[in-house]
Amino acid sequence: MTRYLLTASAQMGPIARSETRTDTVRRLIAMMQEAKGRGCELVVFPELALTTFFPRWLIEDEAELDSFYETEMPSAATQPLFDEAARLGIGFYLGYAELVVEGGVKRRFNTSIIVDATGRIVGKYRKVHLPGTAEPLGGRQFEHLEKRYFEPGDLGFPVFRGFGGVMGMAICNDRRWPETYRVMGLQGVEMVMLGYNTPFDHGNNQCMDSLTLFHNHLSMQAGAYQNATWVVGTAKCGNEEGSRMGGQSVIVAPSGEIVAMACTVEDEVITARCDLDMGNTYKTTIFDFARHRRPEHYRLIVERTGAIPPSE
Amino acid sequence: MTRYLLTASAQMGPIARSETRTDTVRRLIAMMQEAKGRGCELVVFPELALTTFFPRWLIEDEAELDSFYETEMPSAATQPLFDEAARLGIGFYLGYAELVVEGGVKRRFNTSIIVDATGRIVGKYRKVHLPGTAEPLGGRQFEHLEKRYFEPGDLGFPVFRGFGGVMGMAICNDRRWPETYRVMGLQGVEMVMLGYNTPFDHGNNQCMDSLTLFHNHLSMQAGAYQNATWVVGTAKCGNEEGSRMGGQSVIVAPSGEIVAMACTVEDEVITARCDLDMGNTYKTTIFDFARHRRPEHYRLIVERTGAIPPSE
Repeated sequence: MTRYLLTASAQMGPIARSETRTDTVRRLIAMMQEAKGRGCELVVFPELALTTFFPRWLIEDEAELDSFYETEMPSAATQPLFDEAARLGIGFYLGYAELVVEGGVKRRFNTSIIVDATGRIVGKYRKVHLPGTAEPLGGRQFEHLEKRYFEPGDLGFPVFRGFGGVMGMAICNDRRWPETYRVMGLQGVEMVMLGYNTPFDHGNNQCMDSLTLFHNHLSMQAGAYQNATWVVGTAKCGNEEGSRMGGQSVIVAPSGEIVAMACTVEDEVITARCDLDMGNTYKTTIFDFARHRRPEHYRLIVERTGAIPPSE
Repeated sequence: MTRYLLTASAQMGPIARSETRTDTVRRLIAMMQEAKGRGCELVVFPELALTTFFPRWLIEDEAELDSFYETEMPSAATQPLFDEAARLGIGFYLGYAELVVEGGVKRRFNTSIIVDATGRIVGKYRKVHLPGTAEPLGGRQFEHLEKRYFEPGDLGFPVFRGFGGVMGMAICNDRRWPETYRVMGLQGVEMVMLGYNTPFDHGNNQCMDSLTLFHNHLSMQAGAYQNATWVVGTAKCGNEEGSRMGGQSVIVAPSGEIVAMACTVEDEVITARCDLDMGNTYKTTIFDFARHRRPEHYRLIVERTGAIPPSE
């Protein structure tokens, strides 16, 4: 059996701090049109795809900080993207900073949504694994303050039926954590959509720096293989306000093979014909979870957060 | 800080069905001596390193089946390996089929042990993730009957202090399951020793076949990186009784990088100087589990064994 979903990953080059939502949405629409022109039914945009990657700065003025968040989706500025999706009949994944007010309290999440080919939001995810720190480290050109500007996602790792399959979402650093893929794998996920902004290390650790792109692919390829799912990873990349971020957006098959990869650090659309049935070969043999998993030996994964070495 | 452990992976070529334990132990001793001569303090042998990979056959005669198992360790045939380890002052990991009689009932496990540099057994592990089937599939040249000949390990994934660090064990198919590494990672593991026998697919799935060695490395590299641990993977390989098995034994750094790899499918020793402190860079930043993990969202990993897709 084959169940094809023609899929695009729409990588973005840098977004300047001064760039307006309207300008950014115009870039997204251009790539959506290209994806549709190449036959795709789904396009995956990056994490925080509407603004520059603001967690690199300590921003103390609340109004200024709030300006990077969306308080409604769609908004006046993003409505054209939804309209164009409906007009073209193409779905999309979009990452953005979400600000909600609950009981008079502001809550902030690093969020993504799935929108179907009629322009309707059919799924939402909030990033669980926030990297970085809540307090500035100082002594470096750029900070990484996601733990300051967002709270951890409170929606778990839901999956959604759509596009003829079982679709899941993750965001950036989530991809390094095997739990992310496994929780979706246990819900039969067939495609994980994942946007990222991955700065090269700003702590001047050259060794880490040289491995950034290797780790990006290693994590997604392992997650794909070990759960027999497609993974579509889409970067925002290039030199953004002086901060260099990794590209190499990929579409990864359930075999762990990279079947499409971006080769610029600019706006670039890559596509693949993804057979959502491809994972079945694995799911019924080596990764038939029901036959092979042994949860009685996995309890530490939920009973312990940090590592505790044995006593000396 | 650096905390070096000079480590060898001692890959084995095929073991013929007719080969005696005494002959096989002689091969192990020769590689142990080479490892010591190259400065190593620890040598990792394969899974089921004392016999041919017998789960490829349906063996109905119980005495014949029993002949592949060890009922004591060390035994008369394996004592020379322990003696040589003590004489040289080198530790080792060894995989073998274990038969124990409890309350008059035979129990069979796919087992590995750690032996310290005085020849004393300091840790035991029994393979948790058994691949293959309990009943023969038929219609193929070779079966894979591990689920028939072994019961799943009942010791979890323990770690042991030794060789100046925190040591863990896994066996073959365990390496494909991220839970294996994570449960040890949560106990601060610094080196995972892992033997394998990995036949190329005998179901005539050419596509799977071509990916066997890629999946071998992908799984171990991801496990190493995501838990900031060394992984030493040692194959028994080559054409064993007509069944071809993959080689490419590796030593993988906590960065996920392969730092040594075998390039034959014969008896071959590879070595690396492993800094057990190397993982600390990751364990205190991107993989500081205590700061970043979110077990409240991981519950499905232990609450569900098989995958359950959402309703249509």
